[in-house]
Amino acid sequence: MLRTTTMIRFAPVNCGRLLVTRFLSTPREIVRYNLLKKLGHSAWVQRRTMASTVTKNSQGPTAIVMMNMGGPGSLDEVEPFLTRLFTDGDIIPLGPFQQKLGRFIARRRTPKVRKNYEMIGGRSPILPWTEIQGKEMCKILDTLSPQTAPHLPFPMFRYANPLTEDVLDRMKASGVRRAVAFTQYPQYSCTTTGSSLNELRVQLTKKNMTNDFTWSIIDRWPTQPGLIKGFAESIQAILDTYPKNEQDDTIIVFSAHSLPMTQINKGDSYINEVAATSYAVMQQLGFRNKYINAWQSQVGPTRWMAPQTMDVLTWLAKKGHKNAILVPIAFTSDHIETLHELEEYIAEAKALGMTGVRRMPGLNDNASFIKGMADLVAGHLQKNERFSTQFLMCCPGCNKESCKLRKEFYNKLVKQRTCEPLISETQNASGICV
Amino acid sequence: MLRTTTMIRFAPVNCGRLLVTRFLSTPREIVRYNLLKKLGHSAWVQRRTMASTVTKNSQGPTAIVMMNMGGPGSLDEVEPFLTRLFTDGDIIPLGPFQQKLGRFIARRRTPKVRKNYEMIGGRSPILPWTEIQGKEMCKILDTLSPQTAPHLPFPMFRYANPLTEDVLDRMKASGVRRAVAFTQYPQYSCTTTGSSLNELRVQLTKKNMTNDFTWSIIDRWPTQPGLIKGFAESIQAILDTYPKNEQDDTIIVFSAHSLPMTQINKGDSYINEVAATSYAVMQQLGFRNKYINAWQSQVGPTRWMAPQTMDVLTWLAKKGHKNAILVPIAFTSDHIETLHELEEYIAEAKALGMTGVRRMPGLNDNASFIKGMADLVAGHLQKNERFSTQFLMCCPGCNKESCKLRKEFYNKLVKQRTCEPLISETQNASGICV
Repeated sequence: MLRTTTMIRFAPVNCGRLLVTRFLSTPREIVRYNLLKKLGHSAWVQRRTMASTVTKNSQGPTAIVMMNMGGPGSLDEVEPFLTRLFTDGDIIPLGPFQQKLGRFIARRRTPKVRKNYEMIGGRSPILPWTEIQGKEMCKILDTLSPQTAPHLPFPMFRYANPLTEDVLDRMKASGVRRAVAFTQYPQYSCTTTGSSLNELRVQLTKKNMTNDFTWSIIDRWPTQPGLIKGFAESIQAILDTYPKNEQDDTIIVFSAHSLPMTQINKGDSYINEVAATSYAVMQQLGFRNKYINAWQSQVGPTRWMAPQTMDVLTWLAKKGHKNAILVPIAFTSDHIETLHELEEYIAEAKALGMTGVRRMPGLNDNASFIKGMADLVAGHLQKNERFSTQFLMCCPGCNKESCKLRKEFYNKLVKQRTCEPLISETQNASGICV
Repeated sequence: MLRTTTMIRFAPVNCGRLLVTRFLSTPREIVRYNLLKKLGHSAWVQRRTMASTVTKNSQGPTAIVMMNMGGPGSLDEVEPFLTRLFTDGDIIPLGPFQQKLGRFIARRRTPKVRKNYEMIGGRSPILPWTEIQGKEMCKILDTLSPQTAPHLPFPMFRYANPLTEDVLDRMKASGVRRAVAFTQYPQYSCTTTGSSLNELRVQLTKKNMTNDFTWSIIDRWPTQPGLIKGFAESIQAILDTYPKNEQDDTIIVFSAHSLPMTQINKGDSYINEVAATSYAVMQQLGFRNKYINAWQSQVGPTRWMAPQTMDVLTWLAKKGHKNAILVPIAFTSDHIETLHELEEYIAEAKALGMTGVRRMPGLNDNASFIKGMADLVAGHLQKNERFSTQFLMCCPGCNKESCKLRKEFYNKLVKQRTCEPLISETQNASGICV
């Protein structure tokens, strides 16, 4: 059991504006959090590289590269973060004026977004959470897969520090040879995991590092049992905060970042994988509550996947419902969309009469979830997987060059494994296949 | 194992225009099929009511009402079928002119649709298949749940014979007291299962029969293990018809009837449950093939869920793919959409260069699927379920009177069970709870 789990689970969830430090409010946790900050993640990774627990025959160190969008680490990083976001044609396609228009939009939105970050403590909590997840996951991984130990977690963000190019340097400095690109988006979309992998492709090529590591990819994991258990536990914990006689009438609103319909109409698998996750979570919870899949954070005038989360709350309020739990089903760590945007929805819903809308915190350091991540990576290493079969399927209706390049690049980069799996069926250790 | 399974599984699937009798091409099957037709379903049900195998303490007979859209039993039934379909505001909302406009559209479409039915043997195969499924399911149910035996299958169709009003009469004549309204659409939509249950509500009220049977409802079952196994076996059987070296490059295209976006934007759960089914099927198959969820049978100028099945095939053809399997994921029996429409897509795809597109036949009499249905109903009876929790959730964005009425009607009609479950955890029989 991780130390913060109990505290997080029973933290008041409908508490208006949240500060990231409020997640870490016991003296022990504050010491731990500050120590982590002081030491720096790299120092911790460095220490682990030299760790004495590594088995003699290990082929490690193995980098577990935790890919995500990231978030600004300070208010001054908001503009560079938005600039990277809006100039990324994979997530926000702006045509031939991508760079200029992207910079312009980023500059215009910075003041408003800065204010939002001020409200959640002046920085995104996504990096601290990813670092905690990585450390705990790697501890378990060292036990599950000593042949590939030590496992070193490397958060790698698409739009914020630590950026891809810097992480690659750190990986090299840490003596890593084997690397798993492990997306932290459980459900695949070309706009998220696809974009991160495009950036990795670009940086590996630019830095002439394609031969420096032996790569494999975990590109989607929408129904991984630990992930599902983590969601179910976290939802149950919030359900338990309602009076007993209100629990059955509390509606579970799964809220995922929406996508433009143009993307969905091309065949992007994201919404289907989100649906697979939410269905599996409800199955784990025994379908005791009503639920709905909703979509948040739509921007611009085009058509996006609906129903929108705020519309759902408005409609439920009109129908006389009081209680709902907002579940951020497509993110695993808290960040601006879960901390600020969902709180805004809650405030709006309250004004409409839905007085009992509460927010499920991100999975963050939920122990079942982190154990699930470790199981997933261990299984991936043991089976010598390259990536999912689905990874080589470009959306049928898409002709983007970046998608084609990604597919070709990784199909070449990630070698076919020809030797035996790392762990045989009887769990005897055998050699690592690189 | 059911008798026809092997034959169906290895029947040539890409055989152009199909006749329903081609599914039943061995002498033994033809004898069986003709006997069924001659005896008539009612006669068979009658005989079972008197059957000597029923246990003395049974609370049966229990009607398993198999609700579906149905299809015309002859070419002359095409127009009445289309008229019922287009005048049903639950599935095709035409506003205040529903009746007049619906009749007009039905009349106009009849000649074309008649031709389509001519091509598949002059009638829809949905009733014969449903009768076979019902008989086989009930045989298993009698063993699994002797307390509620005999179980009598009653196909009940929304737009074709046997219509709701007639089936209710037959149920009464058969001495039925307990009835399970068992939707044959695995994934719930207000436009399908919702419409069937609305019709049942209307007819029960009209015929003053609300107290004649003790009802419960199986309103959705998108990931029932037997259903998933049935799909996986059927897909594997088609995969096995490709040369070994082509199997990995064969793309699985799950094709479900599309829905207008207006319906989805209100919060209809259908597309999410379809995604849960297809994901579970791929999981069962070990994710060895690439796959995509696509949507077929769009009509009219409004926006519907996409990508459309034919678009997907067109795009795949452009990208140089040759092989794909079309899987009718939202129907369990063959009918016009699976037999005729998918064959049309296959012919079009062939013209575009996709020479290896094949169609998975409906689950029809797949043994795993039928065992799954029996397990589902047995569990439902044993747990004394009313309906799913989700069933009382109207789409948040919908204010249709029929939806509200349905919810209220069944919440009242289907009694809360207060006694012990039918079968205790140790599988000892106890009394039935009505």
